[in-house]
Amino acid sequence: MMTLQEAEARDAADPLKSYRALFDLPAELIYLDGNSLAPLPRATPERLQGVVSEEWGKGLVGSWNHAGWWEAPIRIGNKIAPLLGARPGEVVATDTTSANLFKLVMAAAALKPGAILAERDNFPTDAHIASEAARLLGRPFRLVDGADLADALATDVSVAIVTHVNYRTAARADMVKLNAAADRSGVTMIWDLSHSIGAVPLDLPRDGTRLAVGCSYKYLNGGPGAPAWLYVASDLQGDLRTPIAGWWGHAAPFAFEAEYRPADGIARFLSGTQPMLSLLSAEVGIDLMQSVDMVAVWEKSIALFELFADRMAALCPELTLVTPRDPAKRGSHISFQHEGAYGIIQALIERGVVGDYRAPGIARFGLTPLYLGFGDIWRASAILADVVRSEVWKDPRFATSRTVT
Amino acid sequence: MMTLQEAEARDAADPLKSYRALFDLPAELIYLDGNSLAPLPRATPERLQGVVSEEWGKGLVGSWNHAGWWEAPIRIGNKIAPLLGARPGEVVATDTTSANLFKLVMAAAALKPGAILAERDNFPTDAHIASEAARLLGRPFRLVDGADLADALATDVSVAIVTHVNYRTAARADMVKLNAAADRSGVTMIWDLSHSIGAVPLDLPRDGTRLAVGCSYKYLNGGPGAPAWLYVASDLQGDLRTPIAGWWGHAAPFAFEAEYRPADGIARFLSGTQPMLSLLSAEVGIDLMQSVDMVAVWEKSIALFELFADRMAALCPELTLVTPRDPAKRGSHISFQHEGAYGIIQALIERGVVGDYRAPGIARFGLTPLYLGFGDIWRASAILADVVRSEVWKDPRFATSRTVT
Repeated sequence: MMTLQEAEARDAADPLKSYRALFDLPAELIYLDGNSLAPLPRATPERLQGVVSEEWGKGLVGSWNHAGWWEAPIRIGNKIAPLLGARPGEVVATDTTSANLFKLVMAAAALKPGAILAERDNFPTDAHIASEAARLLGRPFRLVDGADLADALATDVSVAIVTHVNYRTAARADMVKLNAAADRSGVTMIWDLSHSIGAVPLDLPRDGTRLAVGCSYKYLNGGPGAPAWLYVASDLQGDLRTPIAGWWGHAAPFAFEAEYRPADGIARFLSGTQPMLSLLSAEVGIDLMQSVDMVAVWEKSIALFELFADRMAALCPELTLVTPRDPAKRGSHISFQHEGAYGIIQALIERGVVGDYRAPGIARFGLTPLYLGFGDIWRASAILADVVRSEVWKDPRFATSRTVT
Repeated sequence: MMTLQEAEARDAADPLKSYRALFDLPAELIYLDGNSLAPLPRATPERLQGVVSEEWGKGLVGSWNHAGWWEAPIRIGNKIAPLLGARPGEVVATDTTSANLFKLVMAAAALKPGAILAERDNFPTDAHIASEAARLLGRPFRLVDGADLADALATDVSVAIVTHVNYRTAARADMVKLNAAADRSGVTMIWDLSHSIGAVPLDLPRDGTRLAVGCSYKYLNGGPGAPAWLYVASDLQGDLRTPIAGWWGHAAPFAFEAEYRPADGIARFLSGTQPMLSLLSAEVGIDLMQSVDMVAVWEKSIALFELFADRMAALCPELTLVTPRDPAKRGSHISFQHEGAYGIIQALIERGVVGDYRAPGIARFGLTPLYLGFGDIWRASAILADVVRSEVWKDPRFATSRTVT
């Protein structure tokens, strides 16, 4: 098993090591929660200060034109596109993941009658959006287990919302296989890539994905609640009509026409005025990803995972690994099941190791290669083993509370 | 007619004059566009720096719990409520005005069959949202002129989206009369108060309004694209089900249940994770309004309007006032029609007077009493008269472009 010295030697030779300096990460923390909220990029405060004091403060309303505010959703979408293997004009940064799921499921349901389907183990918002869309449209709603998904993509299904990397276990669905099953049955698939983008290499056109959504505050470093994005393959854009038909998605927004005419292209999925401070903050985090080699990121993620999993198996067999070992079957976080998972996470935070809890019974740790090293994982696993084995997690001050994805 | 000396004497005696120092307004500008984007409150940059560097940078994911991020939409809604005459728990700050209109029109349409109605002269997003909601629900859509509105609120109408203060002309609808007509026909009214809140005193319960939306970047000083808000009277909340059923609106968001159960109260109208930097910036602007006497604001707005209208009538009769003279029939901006309105606005901007253009043919000026004085209006009207009469607006460099509300 790797020693701390060997772990530190790997960090010294890490081709991604220069990225850590781009984040303002407190030195005393081992932050294993970048899959929930990425740390602050060092470039963000200065950019935001410029946006606030110069663009808003001095440029005032003219900044909508002169500072590129109006174009930001499309411009930032074009910067997200390469991380999906998508082309310019296929992605727009806007609204929330929930709202974007709603737009796509309602638009796609119009293409074919039939049921609306969601996975039981999706992040809950995905199932909620799907079930209420079905209710609105008077369609059957089906909530199925991930394992049954391929069979459930039947000819009487209209649209399915599926998650690529599961938010609890990091289990990764087989995108190619599920898209093929959906194609055979004429089902439109909408993929939630919130835990995939910036974590695993993606090539949506190659893998047959034509609709997807995701957030930008996890592996895209966008900041708390930063606007989400949606992807629609070019050839499908003209067939889809957004339900939330706001003026930003109009063909001629500055003609102020009372009649709604959807814009050509991806802009039709915009609706209202976008939150510029949050959106331009997200752009800094997304800019940081432009130079990143996603293959190198994924290879390092695999190695960090193996170090973490191996050490926990050796040091602390009481923890049950619930994330698949096979890299092809998972994303970039690692989760363990334990009856005391909530208290374990709280005790770890006290010791400077930040992971998070997901009900029921899951301790979850993000492996984010841009700002985490092998030494971090080596130390975190030692502290985790100590917390579990010492039973400090039974302390009543670690009572159940809540966390945010 | 008031002299410049008299105007400056009124500024010196103005009970609201201390508010101007709370805004970071460039000294060389007369900013008559706060009804589109309010200037930067001086407190905003420091607060945002704290949010970014301390709460995000150091607090990281824990700030969702420890820095009050999760509660922000409800907390800020409760600060908006007094400006509407609403009670705590009746307003939430979230998403965009367009998305909030969509939520309310879809939810309200479920209460009664029948047509969905919008005003032709609404800001376009209102009509777009209404027409596409009607399409989705298979309901008739009616687009009616504001003058015909009271008659159009017939028994076969389900929901109407109406604007209180018109974005072009500032004409103010008679809220009491229209609500009474709607009540007689069983029509649910949704009021767009984007150009009303913070501009005119409002008392929604008194005036019979039970559903409303609005933005926070105009008279609430929230910053570019700051999240919007929605109001639902307490007694109606339990009857309405949002179409965009995201996890933030769930009865138990941290139980991660697959089945959707709407939260009690106003929280049910939340959906996805909110853009914290933009939302917490908005809170600074809204905090600034907490001490403001809206009666004093409105009285000063009336006086500023009268000064501007009187001087333009005297100096430049070529401009046609399209805003009603009667204060009871208008909001807090003033609009003039002129064939050269677009070029007039561009020429004014070159001379340090910022207004905006609204197609077709309207030059629009916001009268925002917290940071504008009588001296400003006196000077702006002199410059406007000079621009119009000199015909500098005919210069070809002032060709048609665009502006943002």
